Amino acid sequence: MQRGLFITIEGGEGVGKSTNLQFIADCLRTSGREVITTREPGGTAFSEEIRTLLLAPREEQVSEEAELLLMFSARAQHLSQLIMPSLENGVCVLSDRFTDATYAYQGGGRGQSMERIAILETMVQGGFRPDLTLLLDAPVEIGMARANKRGALDRFEQEKAAFFERVRQVYLARAEAYPERVCVIDASKSLQAVQAEILQAIKERI
Amino acid sequence: MQRGLFITIEGGEGVGKSTNLQFIADCLRTSGREVITTREPGGTAFSEEIRTLLLAPREEQVSEEAELLLMFSARAQHLSQLIMPSLENGVCVLSDRFTDATYAYQGGGRGQSMERIAILETMVQGGFRPDLTLLLDAPVEIGMARANKRGALDRFEQEKAAFFERVRQVYLARAEAYPERVCVIDASKSLQAVQAEILQAIKERI
Repeated sequence: MQRGLFITIEGGEGVGKSTNLQFIADCLRTSGREVITTREPGGTAFSEEIRTLLLAPREEQVSEEAELLLMFSARAQHLSQLIMPSLENGVCVLSDRFTDATYAYQGGGRGQSMERIAILETMVQGGFRPDLTLLLDAPVEIGMARANKRGALDRFEQEKAAFFERVRQVYLARAEAYPERVCVIDASKSLQAVQAEILQAIKERI
Repeated sequence: MQRGLFITIEGGEGVGKSTNLQFIADCLRTSGREVITTREPGGTAFSEEIRTLLLAPREEQVSEEAELLLMFSARAQHLSQLIMPSLENGVCVLSDRFTDATYAYQGGGRGQSMERIAILETMVQGGFRPDLTLLLDAPVEIGMARANKRGALDRFEQEKAAFFERVRQVYLARAEAYPERVCVIDASKSLQAVQAEILQAIKERI
């Protein structure tokens, strides 16, 4: 049986990841592939419990190291219980965020050591990487304005614009470093234009 | 201000860690020291939430890697929010389990790579180690018989005797490898005899 494809959608707040995730899933299904959609942190009941721990606003200050290790714990579980078994069964897995987000948010945003993230990436994933990563990119002001319309902000969304600017820059740097894997989509355009770009990227790369 | 002492109590199931933790705290307080008692995984509200995640029986199989990373996440939080600030304020910290338990349970018991545990130990602790570790040691059958009297078994306690034998052997190997830090107490003796040994060890070593 042919192994499924692992595709990740990345990007800052309000760039349209959820909407476009469904669009990509529909495209792949139309082309006859079996697809599941998932997200990080999360994706299994246990990993979703870790997600709840991570995102809940709380008085106790959560150390950056504890946060980083929780992210990779949720990822290890997600990989072993959902992603790898699905791919091995020929199912395509489409994930709203993956390890690029850890580099962007914990590394870029919070200033954690990129080397430390790389050590954990190797520990948890070995050489496993997405087959394709679609990076939805938009200027920070545009993304935040969109995200703010969605209602109450969670702990991460409450962070400042400077934080999101650092996140964006790390995402773009990773796209430049891994051009064969990461495809940058201009998410400041209309939804129609964005989806045309996504469709083009998928056709070219898979 | 003089830095507080960091003392850990280790050992398998039913060796009397809780009882003797209180005894040691009382001894140290009698000698004029300020003492807090804590435990791993746990010790802060956030780390206790991680503990709950770890110990809850569940249908989803928790991957060994996810478990190991959760342990170190809880530890990173415990260190940054409770242990280090207390020690810096001159308070002695007495912990029911610490990293030796990770080597014994996740390494020995579950067969996870000791090298991986060492990488995480260095990542989270740097060179920080307990000033003194009291290892309460008893044959597995004795410990399990005592533990079983305490009521419902949690996920870890349900594991088999062979598992606990591996745990015990790793604990003993660590005591042999770090004799200046780890003191083995024969926990198969009467409580009175055990506490006499503990008192002796504390007097000799601190």
